[in-house]
Amino acid sequence: MVGVSLLHEMLQHNTRWIAERSRPLSKAPQKRVVIFTCMDTRLVEFLEPALGLKRGDAKMIKNAGNTLVDPGGGVVRSLVVAIHALQCEEVFVIGHKDCGMTQLDENALRQTMIARGVPPAAIDALEPSLGEWLGGFHDPLGNVERVVELLRANPLIPGDVPIHGLMFDPGSGIAEVLVAGYADAGRITDVSQTKPNEYR
Amino acid sequence: MVGVSLLHEMLQHNTRWIAERSRPLSKAPQKRVVIFTCMDTRLVEFLEPALGLKRGDAKMIKNAGNTLVDPGGGVVRSLVVAIHALQCEEVFVIGHKDCGMTQLDENALRQTMIARGVPPAAIDALEPSLGEWLGGFHDPLGNVERVVELLRANPLIPGDVPIHGLMFDPGSGIAEVLVAGYADAGRITDVSQTKPNEYR
Repeated sequence: MVGVSLLHEMLQHNTRWIAERSRPLSKAPQKRVVIFTCMDTRLVEFLEPALGLKRGDAKMIKNAGNTLVDPGGGVVRSLVVAIHALQCEEVFVIGHKDCGMTQLDENALRQTMIARGVPPAAIDALEPSLGEWLGGFHDPLGNVERVVELLRANPLIPGDVPIHGLMFDPGSGIAEVLVAGYADAGRITDVSQTKPNEYR
Repeated sequence: MVGVSLLHEMLQHNTRWIAERSRPLSKAPQKRVVIFTCMDTRLVEFLEPALGLKRGDAKMIKNAGNTLVDPGGGVVRSLVVAIHALQCEEVFVIGHKDCGMTQLDENALRQTMIARGVPPAAIDALEPSLGEWLGGFHDPLGNVERVVELLRANPLIPGDVPIHGLMFDPGSGIAEVLVAGYADAGRITDVSQTKPNEYR
């Protein structure tokens, strides 16, 4: 009976698997979630499986250090489209430990750019300035909190959309909650609400 | 002997696997590449394996429709960090077929936003305007070409960095070259240079 049962199970799985593969996936993510995280290479093929997110589950927005440069820029527009047109109901801002952005020195970066032929005037024209942008990043945990606050205050994002803040360890794959965005705190009783001080 | 050999193979694999897992990965991607693509949920756990990109191989920048809102915004800053601080030597702009952005109607989106409580003034304050941003997107293939051109013309990105433009099919996983960024065309003899007209 064990063999028959296993055969049955495998064929059932195969039927589901084929149906899933051939079904055209919706543009609207199954888990109704949009993630804003970092472009870091160690998160590729790692952050999504670490959070149980498969193809079709989530929208993924990524840039250097999950930084918000402009309240009307590409990141906020992407969130607007995800929420208002593609059925996303929750936002996760996910920073990570050992982010390359924390170690960037404005002057060193500037010198490297100029050595590669970038005109100093093009660097100086950046608004906010390179230094201001990098400076706001030296604390990646504070950056996640700040981005959550800025998004929370952004009138383009409805007040009833939970915005969570998490920190992720790109070595171990451990995710910890910094800001739980649910209005009803009872919804997060199964995760630690303690701030991970090791990231400070 | 077959059994011994297989045992040997598996243990060898295991040794390599453990070494790879425990080795702290570099922030600089192994393949020295940065990808700028769409936040679409069908690309999650799909675009990277379709291109042979594993954890540690590439930086990934993602937003709605791989659109460039601002020449000094988050996307360009992310490319600046990837190229000037994290050893990326090539840029891939990857659009995709059946992008949700192509089907967005400015007025419908505006009405949905207002119905969710977004103040019309907040929508009107966007610069470039919502309509201008969405309007520039109705041709995703043209968007990839435009983004490649804008990045190519951006003084913050050195002229010797190849910038390629690709289109990806989120159903089949097929990638096609729109713009081959190598100065030496001989480097792309093994891929089709034909524009995929089906995307038009």
